[in-house]
Amino acid sequence: MDDAPSGGITRRTLVGGAAAGAAAAVLPTGADAATTTATATARKARPRRTADVIVVGAGLAGLTAARRLVAAGRSVIVLEARDRVGGRTLNADLGGGKVVEVGGQWVGPTQDRLLALAKELSVETFKTYQEGKAVLVYRGSHQTFDLSGPLGPIPPIPDGILDAATAIQKLDAMAATVPVDAPWTAKQALEWDSQTFETWLQANALTKGGRFLVELGFSSVFAAEPRDVSLLFALFYMAAAGDEQHVGTFDRLINTAGGAQESRFVGGSQRISLLAAAQLGRRVVLGAPVRRIAQAGGHVTVTTDRASYRGRHAVVTLPPTLAGRIDYLPALTAQRDQLTQRVPMGTVIKVQAVYDEPFWRGDGLAGYANGDVDPVHLTFDNSPPDGSPGILIGFIEGELGRVWGQKTVAERRAGVLNSFATYFGERARSPTRYLEMSWAAEPYTRGCYVGFMPPGVLTSYGRELRRPAGRIHWAGTETSGYWNGYMDGAVRSGERVGAELLGGA
Amino acid sequence: MDDAPSGGITRRTLVGGAAAGAAAAVLPTGADAATTTATATARKARPRRTADVIVVGAGLAGLTAARRLVAAGRSVIVLEARDRVGGRTLNADLGGGKVVEVGGQWVGPTQDRLLALAKELSVETFKTYQEGKAVLVYRGSHQTFDLSGPLGPIPPIPDGILDAATAIQKLDAMAATVPVDAPWTAKQALEWDSQTFETWLQANALTKGGRFLVELGFSSVFAAEPRDVSLLFALFYMAAAGDEQHVGTFDRLINTAGGAQESRFVGGSQRISLLAAAQLGRRVVLGAPVRRIAQAGGHVTVTTDRASYRGRHAVVTLPPTLAGRIDYLPALTAQRDQLTQRVPMGTVIKVQAVYDEPFWRGDGLAGYANGDVDPVHLTFDNSPPDGSPGILIGFIEGELGRVWGQKTVAERRAGVLNSFATYFGERARSPTRYLEMSWAAEPYTRGCYVGFMPPGVLTSYGRELRRPAGRIHWAGTETSGYWNGYMDGAVRSGERVGAELLGGA
Repeated sequence: MDDAPSGGITRRTLVGGAAAGAAAAVLPTGADAATTTATATARKARPRRTADVIVVGAGLAGLTAARRLVAAGRSVIVLEARDRVGGRTLNADLGGGKVVEVGGQWVGPTQDRLLALAKELSVETFKTYQEGKAVLVYRGSHQTFDLSGPLGPIPPIPDGILDAATAIQKLDAMAATVPVDAPWTAKQALEWDSQTFETWLQANALTKGGRFLVELGFSSVFAAEPRDVSLLFALFYMAAAGDEQHVGTFDRLINTAGGAQESRFVGGSQRISLLAAAQLGRRVVLGAPVRRIAQAGGHVTVTTDRASYRGRHAVVTLPPTLAGRIDYLPALTAQRDQLTQRVPMGTVIKVQAVYDEPFWRGDGLAGYANGDVDPVHLTFDNSPPDGSPGILIGFIEGELGRVWGQKTVAERRAGVLNSFATYFGERARSPTRYLEMSWAAEPYTRGCYVGFMPPGVLTSYGRELRRPAGRIHWAGTETSGYWNGYMDGAVRSGERVGAELLGGA
Repeated sequence: MDDAPSGGITRRTLVGGAAAGAAAAVLPTGADAATTTATATARKARPRRTADVIVVGAGLAGLTAARRLVAAGRSVIVLEARDRVGGRTLNADLGGGKVVEVGGQWVGPTQDRLLALAKELSVETFKTYQEGKAVLVYRGSHQTFDLSGPLGPIPPIPDGILDAATAIQKLDAMAATVPVDAPWTAKQALEWDSQTFETWLQANALTKGGRFLVELGFSSVFAAEPRDVSLLFALFYMAAAGDEQHVGTFDRLINTAGGAQESRFVGGSQRISLLAAAQLGRRVVLGAPVRRIAQAGGHVTVTTDRASYRGRHAVVTLPPTLAGRIDYLPALTAQRDQLTQRVPMGTVIKVQAVYDEPFWRGDGLAGYANGDVDPVHLTFDNSPPDGSPGILIGFIEGELGRVWGQKTVAERRAGVLNSFATYFGERARSPTRYLEMSWAAEPYTRGCYVGFMPPGVLTSYGRELRRPAGRIHWAGTETSGYWNGYMDGAVRSGERVGAELLGGA
């Protein structure tokens, strides 16, 4: 009944502390000594620590909120369920001072709040490697294509490219009418929220190739199937891929150059959270899953298995589905609770193979592949900045993630390496190391990249996403307008909730 | 931030014990002294009681499972979060030995397992009152119609009745191809699970009147909007409205005579659970919300706020969304956990007005109304068997339940009485008592009638509904084939899980 272990690294090889669960394949490097001490202290007894604000979750949203509040002179405690900070970002240690991310990792133009936070913490970026040709394997045929063409990363499937381009143009035009902070007010909101993306796709992608291309982009963005997601939510998500000056587009979601996959962080994306947490020091408590939040007499009491914490306000940064698993006293409203029943997490297993060198580069290949070779339909070169070691990353998304998540690690490894070899040649079958992270199996995440909305949810419950419940305020990337679902959205949500509390506290 | 109190009866008037939450408008009559004692005992300390099977939830599923297991000589403990048994059935005390249900209440043909349980406990049934004419108020026009016609409870809207009848015929034909125990194996499962019921309705109900009629039936069954629900799930639910000898139909869901609303239980439907619990005696522990279920060393440990219970197996009867809020050690698989993120509860506020007598009967009316007068689109005569007092029951369902759930009790009362008066005349404005129950606001239910599935869920996650997680078995009406979502389905699920454990224990 237990999950087949999804970590290519066994627990024996884990460094420091207990793993959060069977799914945690890796642990962060550079764990902050101060926070480890704080955890150990909390575990000794049942102290009641107090602060102005108790933040639940030490991912980018919670850490950003905490930074804002501390900078304004507020006292803060950040409670994190896992034995590490970073939320859905997580570095795997490759040895020799090198890391690779098994969670969120890319940053691109208009993600200015994430870039600003990284700059504050002196975390630099580098361009995602994408020199040379891309690979397409479709219906048994292998070909390469140029990434600098007008369609960027979309491969030139003859019977599909025009169809896909037309569909994407339509989607962008529809998305442009969706207000990112109130998508339920779009003129056609109810019509679009009454159907699945699949229903729209069947009516608007007329060729098999066009459908394949849009589906490929869709699943790479939502880690779900077109049948799972509301058309309105999908359009909102496209509209959110921008900022006040740049209208959101589908292309910006799926592009490397000029898009959300343009750059990476030196030292790994989790480094941002590790450094932010180090600055917060003993304010961050690890290994502290929150079970209950009570409000009474002008304060909140936040209870973990080992201690309780009292504050004037609480900030909950968990995705709605996990926020719904906390026990609230008094109980939350029907509307808020039912929202949390309706925002499921996507399903993705991030898989990586490590090689002595990025051998595909020598073949003139970028490491970027699109294809229909199960279980991996999308790959990138994920090597460190200096190209050593060589790393291919692949994504097992949506239905494939659900089906392949139930197989053994050995079965998945064989399937993944077969996909990689089909795209990049036989050398791909012999990595020095295989890494995987199944975010749906991780008990304190339960899916990635993001909580999405099936039909009917955004129009009926969207207003609840950010509406405070008394002294409880909500953050997390799922509450963001711009870059909802991305690291940048998490940072924006932390800034927004910080402003809420500083305005009203 | 707190819910506007949804109980027409304030907490002051509650009889016995603490209310489960602000939403609990009423408490059961006839609370069993033995179970009350058991609760008091459990609260004194942290005993560790043991039994062969620990059942979570004392609704019809859990009590039925417990009866089966006890009859076979197994020891059982039933843990119930609320201060009462009965789950989504709940009697309100009217005084003078009379009750009326504020939860599930009806029983009809092919619901044989519920009827058998009631018979074992000597709970008798009586026919739902439906003599005289039905009322239709549609687009400002008031008329009456005959319930004994070929279309039964479906009102004769001229521009809609043929359209609706055709749509329902199509739905029945499609539902007949859906296997109730494995709907994901239907030939067109993926096609039907890729769209909302709304998408189908737009293509198949061509008139406003036809659409209104199908929507009315739909929302009365699902307490959700057609845009919220997968077409495949809706068809499965229709297929489930029958038994091995009688194919399920839409009509059997919505009909009174010959359908799911045909009869009621003398003394109220909750009496079945109260009597079953009384027989189980000290095995039933009230006020014991389960927080954690751990499996290790060949046993389960089930932990509440006050005690822990050890067994060889556990049976969890909660709806999937609430089952997902328990902490499991080891963590459940990704597939099982993600299922619980994807089965939201419907939204219904059950409202009732009590009158000295059922005055509509004197006007030749059955007390049954259909209409478009917000917030109540559907009413029944809900008087006790002897017709005294007179009670009208109405349902505020789906989007109306969400919107009206956010208003004050006074606003709802005024709206409800206006609906009743529009259907039945001005006397309806002056009840002696107004009762309401918002199941979405009740912390241990969080919606009614049932957990439903948006598109994509049944095909990708349906197999997880009944698959045991090691020593944890799953019951509850949401796990049933026949009469999924009904009291009968709950009883069937209890019998099925009992058989699982007796076969394998």
